[in-house]
Amino acid sequence: MIITSKNNPLVKETATLKEKKGRKQLGAFLVEGRKMAEECLSGGMTVEKIFVTDGVSLPFPVDEDKLVIVSQDVMRHLSDEKTPQGVLCRVKTPVRPLCAPKGNCLFLDGVADPGNMGAIIRTANAAGYDELYLTRECTDPFSPKSVRASMSGVFFTKLYIADRADILSVLKEADVSLVVADMGGVNVFSFTPPKQFALVIGNEANGISDEVREAARHTVKIPMRATQESLNAAVAAGISMYVLAKEKMIED
Amino acid sequence: MIITSKNNPLVKETATLKEKKGRKQLGAFLVEGRKMAEECLSGGMTVEKIFVTDGVSLPFPVDEDKLVIVSQDVMRHLSDEKTPQGVLCRVKTPVRPLCAPKGNCLFLDGVADPGNMGAIIRTANAAGYDELYLTRECTDPFSPKSVRASMSGVFFTKLYIADRADILSVLKEADVSLVVADMGGVNVFSFTPPKQFALVIGNEANGISDEVREAARHTVKIPMRATQESLNAAVAAGISMYVLAKEKMIED
Repeated sequence: MIITSKNNPLVKETATLKEKKGRKQLGAFLVEGRKMAEECLSGGMTVEKIFVTDGVSLPFPVDEDKLVIVSQDVMRHLSDEKTPQGVLCRVKTPVRPLCAPKGNCLFLDGVADPGNMGAIIRTANAAGYDELYLTRECTDPFSPKSVRASMSGVFFTKLYIADRADILSVLKEADVSLVVADMGGVNVFSFTPPKQFALVIGNEANGISDEVREAARHTVKIPMRATQESLNAAVAAGISMYVLAKEKMIED
Repeated sequence: MIITSKNNPLVKETATLKEKKGRKQLGAFLVEGRKMAEECLSGGMTVEKIFVTDGVSLPFPVDEDKLVIVSQDVMRHLSDEKTPQGVLCRVKTPVRPLCAPKGNCLFLDGVADPGNMGAIIRTANAAGYDELYLTRECTDPFSPKSVRASMSGVFFTKLYIADRADILSVLKEADVSLVVADMGGVNVFSFTPPKQFALVIGNEANGISDEVREAARHTVKIPMRATQESLNAAVAAGISMYVLAKEKMIED
């Protein structure tokens, strides 16, 4: 059966996942495109439904009861893309109780732009920062734009979304040093990171919160010429992640 | 006099600068916001006109004959922002005859996304890569989105837009080594860059062109974990720029 109506209850419900409110209510998010769908499955995510445009073939086997064939019109309604590829998964949002990181981790203190959020998760996965702690002020990492920008990074990293104070206390308890990336501080290229650390990235416009700044043991800066005041948050996070993990990166 | 009509000839003409065709025809581009306007002037750009919404005050002195007061409605028509700040400059596009770089430079081989383009220019200016060579396949660095993402970087760097073959021949003539950032190649963290180099960044989807790849003396990669196939182009460019300039960065 092909679903051709936007008023179909499953379609109507799934369309709410484009907004944060819907994702929260249903505990699910959307993953678009063939490649992302494949990696979402290989990343061990729980796929609730796979919507496929009539006539589009899937590159992997799917349980009959999960497959939903829809018209082009319905796919356009569900999709966040200008030109939908015709494959869209409804995926269970992983929920993790807040716990201490095993290795070096990221602490995102109010990152607001979904493109930056996705790019930071993408880089964190590439550079081996498995765990990311996000304050509730951060943009939703499971929004369509963030998921797309993460290029599957959201499937392979552990994201913890919690109150700032709770993140701080878990990291303190575990004796993880906070290394804040900011304008002032030590040149990141001559800084020797502590044994286990959380790299803190702040909000694009307002930087790091006072609460986190007070708890931080180290502040590092990326050196810059005077005519440029700052870097893009995802770029700065990427440089800091790699430079601080350098020893490991050269070994590999 | 306050201009209140979108049909005013100057307004009509200036609005064409939102599109590439208009920018090409008029040899000008748009710069939005107070801060960007100030930095545009301090960067030595030639400002042709400054459009200011009626009632908005300018933080710097302006020649009477350059100032154009417009209604909110006209400003919204000219602006690329959702909530215009009420200050918008029409600026002469700097035109530079292609010539050899003085130091290390960037070679953008088909960077297509305006956000990436701006972020790359921003990082290049911060990291001291003064000169950027852009193939004609690149997105226009003077589009509103790129200018905004560059955070004034377009005012302080030298951008050369030219045919790929001409860029290659100028760099070859000047004995500048091409260092391609790609998936394969030497780990960028253990690579010793040549004395003078051009760091090559390719297209987001298709990478480096065959022509450039054949001319390249070195290929470097950013090490990545297996579950992440690639990094965002601006992030990868940022890491490569800083890591290759490392010696200089630690000194400063």
